[in-house]
Amino acid sequence: MSGPCSTPQGTSQGTPQGKPMFARIALIGIGLIGSSISHAARRAGLAGEIVGSARTPATVETAMRLGLIEQGFVTAAEAAEDADLVILCTPVGLCGPIAKEIARSLKPGAILTDVGSVKAAIVNDVSPHVPKGVHFIAGHPIAGTEQSGPESGFAELFDGRWCILTPGPDADEAAVKTLSAFWEALGSKVEIMTPEHHDLVLAITSHVPHLIAYNIVNTAAHLERVTDSEVIKFSAGGFRDFTRIAASDPTMWRDVFLNNRDAVLDMLGRFTEDLTMLQRAIRFADGETLHRLFTQARAIRRGIVQAGQDTAAPDFGRGFGAVETGADAPARKR
Amino acid sequence: MSGPCSTPQGTSQGTPQGKPMFARIALIGIGLIGSSISHAARRAGLAGEIVGSARTPATVETAMRLGLIEQGFVTAAEAAEDADLVILCTPVGLCGPIAKEIARSLKPGAILTDVGSVKAAIVNDVSPHVPKGVHFIAGHPIAGTEQSGPESGFAELFDGRWCILTPGPDADEAAVKTLSAFWEALGSKVEIMTPEHHDLVLAITSHVPHLIAYNIVNTAAHLERVTDSEVIKFSAGGFRDFTRIAASDPTMWRDVFLNNRDAVLDMLGRFTEDLTMLQRAIRFADGETLHRLFTQARAIRRGIVQAGQDTAAPDFGRGFGAVETGADAPARKR
Repeated sequence: MSGPCSTPQGTSQGTPQGKPMFARIALIGIGLIGSSISHAARRAGLAGEIVGSARTPATVETAMRLGLIEQGFVTAAEAAEDADLVILCTPVGLCGPIAKEIARSLKPGAILTDVGSVKAAIVNDVSPHVPKGVHFIAGHPIAGTEQSGPESGFAELFDGRWCILTPGPDADEAAVKTLSAFWEALGSKVEIMTPEHHDLVLAITSHVPHLIAYNIVNTAAHLERVTDSEVIKFSAGGFRDFTRIAASDPTMWRDVFLNNRDAVLDMLGRFTEDLTMLQRAIRFADGETLHRLFTQARAIRRGIVQAGQDTAAPDFGRGFGAVETGADAPARKR
Repeated sequence: MSGPCSTPQGTSQGTPQGKPMFARIALIGIGLIGSSISHAARRAGLAGEIVGSARTPATVETAMRLGLIEQGFVTAAEAAEDADLVILCTPVGLCGPIAKEIARSLKPGAILTDVGSVKAAIVNDVSPHVPKGVHFIAGHPIAGTEQSGPESGFAELFDGRWCILTPGPDADEAAVKTLSAFWEALGSKVEIMTPEHHDLVLAITSHVPHLIAYNIVNTAAHLERVTDSEVIKFSAGGFRDFTRIAASDPTMWRDVFLNNRDAVLDMLGRFTEDLTMLQRAIRFADGETLHRLFTQARAIRRGIVQAGQDTAAPDFGRGFGAVETGADAPARKR
């Protein structure tokens, strides 16, 4: 991991005069995403100054120590003061209350955005508090790891990943352009859609997968005839991949499910319907149906690799050598 | 990937006289596992000669070209002739028929084993055909990638992974010891259990996870309001991890489900029960239950990392840089 002051690697994204895109960026919440934004913004020279707030003084201190922010606060209102870009990087459920808290501090002309994994609920919760003259444009970078906290961020997190923006119908065009340019400068590709469509897409590509991962890990933990130690020992057969995403932050994910209820329940209903069909095929030894459905699933995988959202290098067998060398083991090169 | 003739890396595992553990090893089926056994056996100097068979002449040719086998055949009976160790590396459903086919070719004193992902069905299917004097000991290395075919194997696949052996109550002790030593020399750790217990453990650690992965990929493919291209584009939010294991070989997995029906249906029932509880918690906005269950899941993950079956390095954000450099991109080092 690079040190507190990342070396700028990209070309400067400042204005022709050499000024950065934003004189002051405020990060409200400095976890995985907030700290990664700081690293990536510094890499591209996008900010004159980055300030931030976290609810616990220890987090503020860590963020200062890591050089993620120049000034740290324990209240969001202080951090938002005089910022040109304010980014809410907190669990979804806090966005509304924080918007209310910072409303008076927001500078006219400032852009207010967020990084939450659901969008309709955030738009509903935040919009009523946004003062006239402040441009609120909700956003969601589709990037992350299963780790959390200010020490987990890194500059490359957004490289090649999509960031979805969900501006309202009356959003200021120039502000949308600026925010898009910001995310592109962080390394992302930007897509615009409605909050409702975002929530539907993410329900199937992210929320239901996480729910299922959490679920199977807990199912495995409560078996009588298979011990936890056996589950752990023999996890390389597939289970391991599920536990990885089930290691994600519980508070963040609780808020996701509470705030994208309808889309998640819709997708979950379809998932269960399809699973019941597979279950029935197994019960009645219908090998043809199983083979057909398994073959279809391969095509989608191929599409993801072709779209550059994953590599074709086998990962399922990863971590061999980990026994000897731990987390620092270099990945196998083929 | 290393060339056809891997450089021996381990110490020789031969007898004190310098003889290899087996004069002749026969691989019946040369896919991911068969080819990896060849690489790993050569690395450790375990075989005087490795021969093999595959149903399609093209596969035999590829295996010869890659130096995986010294002699190749299209019938299993020819390959098994005069071998000291015969390993069935085919889909589960073929083990019974192949055992019948090779019965007359098996040399007295030879060890016959397999690598199938279910054990009770294979023991039932194979045992009746095993001639007196031949030692049949079923086995299952818990290792793999989502790739298949003779070109997908590599010597390190079994390093640090468990191999489960399920000898019957009357199995020859010396033969069990020899086969254990063989797997250890390939890099594995060996565990002995009954076929029935194996099938229960694997149902939850491997079979149900694969079924769920296949299922969600197909659910995603059949949505009306979310396009396939959107699913692919935004897969980095968790879905991607599921498609990886859903890219595994359809024939192999069909056979697994047809041959471990009872344990899979049992585990699937529990999984659905637990998922229904989560679904209900979402419907009634029970954030406390969600948070509690998500937190519990983290503990199991920690156990897997501590047991050396995965690394703690964040993998969820893997493949950034893949856009530029494709599958050859080195993994991020932190």
